[in-house]
Amino acid sequence: MELRSPQTRDIVPSYWYNITPDLPEQLPPMLHPDGSPVDKRELEALFPRSLVEQEFTTQRHVEIPGEVVETLLMLGRPTPLIRARRLEEALKTNAVILFKYEGVMPTGSHKVNTAVAQAYYNAAEGVERVSTETGAGQWGSALSLAGSLFGLKVRVFMVRASYLQKPYRRILMESYGAEVYPSPSDRTNTGRRLLAENPDHPGSLGIAISEAIEDVVSSGGKAKYSLGSVLNHVLLHQTVIGLEALKQLEMLGVDRVDYIVGCVGGGSNFAGLSYPFIGHRYNDGDPPVFIAVEPETVPSMTRGEYRYDYGDTAGLTPLLKMHTLGHDYIPPPIYAGGLRYHGVAPSLSILVKNGLVKPVAYGESEVLEAGLLFARTQGILPAPESSHAVKAVIDIALKHRGSSRRPVILFNLSGHGLLDLSAYSRTS
Amino acid sequence: MELRSPQTRDIVPSYWYNITPDLPEQLPPMLHPDGSPVDKRELEALFPRSLVEQEFTTQRHVEIPGEVVETLLMLGRPTPLIRARRLEEALKTNAVILFKYEGVMPTGSHKVNTAVAQAYYNAAEGVERVSTETGAGQWGSALSLAGSLFGLKVRVFMVRASYLQKPYRRILMESYGAEVYPSPSDRTNTGRRLLAENPDHPGSLGIAISEAIEDVVSSGGKAKYSLGSVLNHVLLHQTVIGLEALKQLEMLGVDRVDYIVGCVGGGSNFAGLSYPFIGHRYNDGDPPVFIAVEPETVPSMTRGEYRYDYGDTAGLTPLLKMHTLGHDYIPPPIYAGGLRYHGVAPSLSILVKNGLVKPVAYGESEVLEAGLLFARTQGILPAPESSHAVKAVIDIALKHRGSSRRPVILFNLSGHGLLDLSAYSRTS
Repeated sequence: MELRSPQTRDIVPSYWYNITPDLPEQLPPMLHPDGSPVDKRELEALFPRSLVEQEFTTQRHVEIPGEVVETLLMLGRPTPLIRARRLEEALKTNAVILFKYEGVMPTGSHKVNTAVAQAYYNAAEGVERVSTETGAGQWGSALSLAGSLFGLKVRVFMVRASYLQKPYRRILMESYGAEVYPSPSDRTNTGRRLLAENPDHPGSLGIAISEAIEDVVSSGGKAKYSLGSVLNHVLLHQTVIGLEALKQLEMLGVDRVDYIVGCVGGGSNFAGLSYPFIGHRYNDGDPPVFIAVEPETVPSMTRGEYRYDYGDTAGLTPLLKMHTLGHDYIPPPIYAGGLRYHGVAPSLSILVKNGLVKPVAYGESEVLEAGLLFARTQGILPAPESSHAVKAVIDIALKHRGSSRRPVILFNLSGHGLLDLSAYSRTS
Repeated sequence: MELRSPQTRDIVPSYWYNITPDLPEQLPPMLHPDGSPVDKRELEALFPRSLVEQEFTTQRHVEIPGEVVETLLMLGRPTPLIRARRLEEALKTNAVILFKYEGVMPTGSHKVNTAVAQAYYNAAEGVERVSTETGAGQWGSALSLAGSLFGLKVRVFMVRASYLQKPYRRILMESYGAEVYPSPSDRTNTGRRLLAENPDHPGSLGIAISEAIEDVVSSGGKAKYSLGSVLNHVLLHQTVIGLEALKQLEMLGVDRVDYIVGCVGGGSNFAGLSYPFIGHRYNDGDPPVFIAVEPETVPSMTRGEYRYDYGDTAGLTPLLKMHTLGHDYIPPPIYAGGLRYHGVAPSLSILVKNGLVKPVAYGESEVLEAGLLFARTQGILPAPESSHAVKAVIDIALKHRGSSRRPVILFNLSGHGLLDLSAYSRTS
């Protein structure tokens, strides 16, 4: 007997879509600090070989292993594609608003999609343990879940301020069997140095990445590193979102989409929904308008520079060419922890630079108010991150109040807000 | 354009199943304290007429209004039916384990199913406001959501101990626009009297029900009362769960189910899954074994008496014939707030009394360990309430380790544990 009905299975794709061959210019190579390119083999110190292959591949389609498909089905894929008719009515718009809802996944966000793939490949190559960082905890929860399914140990360096203020995410990770340490921790040189300077150091995502990488490098080959966004293979795994949406739109009889909207931290949920629409030349080749939404307080796409930069604070990662606020930029402790990152994915950076994706930035109160309007009309309280997308959708819809056309807006509701309710406590 | 694809819509039923005509004996009437039966008309002081009709109806099928179906589709129905193959493997059982997963609904549990129907009927009859009680907050959140969708004000009396210890659920209700008061409150005579005795009174579900009813009775007809379990019309609305499951089993090619399992507080999630299987005479008339699971600390089915009792502490409700621990029984402050109720639904009580449903009780640590095993094998951390069902399923599956048969077990995973993580903090 199957895990799910044939009608359900059929919506989940059997391959991922890789945007690399369809980018308007070639992806710049990862570099060493001396300017020499990073070789595939060198990356294998950090990642299993199959994920390194995916990081560099130029194939348009990458087959999803059967066990990964089965696991995604078991965890609740396909996620629903829903028309937000009550929001349309509240806005008195002529636009049709559709959303893909990733909050039905067990840890409440899209992060599980790549966590499952990464855990699968690490386990398949005999890796004992993966180490990672987490800020608010969404990524750490997803990887902890995936590790438990594939018998892979998971060690999470959690930004100390979040570790202390958000015990629930830590309990969730530990429920899945993960080890969770507040970062800076006493387990790495980076952490010990920072703790010696300040025993109450609040930590940052960049520091936690440095610790996770140091932990892997000093593991004698037993551990590998795992990242929840930015890299090509992570974005690749998230394309199940857009590939499912293409099939669901066909089932709904929708043959064109005018706008595609998502929020951006490192870029993985945005890419997951939107990239397949670039690759499939939707609308008979006349592409939708792609809108990437970020917080005004972390304006990497709208105000950052496009240049080579490190992915972490200590400079342990290779250099990536991307829109960045500088690897030493410490984002303010905002309501949307998942968007607190100084850079964005290299592939998304190219699309933004070439004008194929339009970045916009919004402030805290307008974003949270948009989230509350969505909750009160559609019943789902969005994650504060996802509320950025909702705000942009509302603005587009309001422009189409009187229009005779009925433009179709599709956005990614990348997660629910049930584990981040404190963000909404002042607004409601 | 439709809200959801035709393939999806088709799984959600267009009618609810009412078990009343299929019970082995007639439902005893609700009584006044003097022993006289409660008339339909009298109940209309508390509930809108359409819900009173449903409470008393003996029709087997009750049509679901189109707007309620649309709203359930919008909120994520149908919920998935998933095979728990990794749990089967971990248990080395020959049993096939299937579960219906209600945690994908926006407030994380099945409660939304009746909340939407109740809000719809109240709004349709011009009611301005509904008042209700909530313990841990699952029911209050669901009704707050539903009220916001139908323009109905919602007032929630929340057990004071939970109000103080669980600010997140309160924020969620307020995000949907509800008014939330700690109970005992200063808004009712019952509340004021108890606060005068003890300004730090922790409250109880029975007291909160008394306050909500008093609030309605003193509203001059503007407000009605709303309840999240126990009553016939509430259980009726939950049968979407089992009716969907019947269709999904057909799609999977499963033509018999040997066990159906659910946890029981008042009985609504258990009834929601199981009653349609009684009504549809599944397995060619050879019924599945129905197992209802409760906590050892609130043993209303396994150790309670079958007799007339009040639904609340102050004795403001009609008398209902049911399994009860006594309306003055104060359940201990256990890990599973949704199961802390002294009685169970009258219809379920009849099924238990006649041996058609088997009640079992489990203790805290074995329940939470079962929940963690489920999380680590299937990826979903169950609500502590739902972990009771998981524990019973595991015990059945273990009995079928060596058996040559492949019995099919179906259970209701009525919610996720993301808003009740503290329950698991000691166990993991």
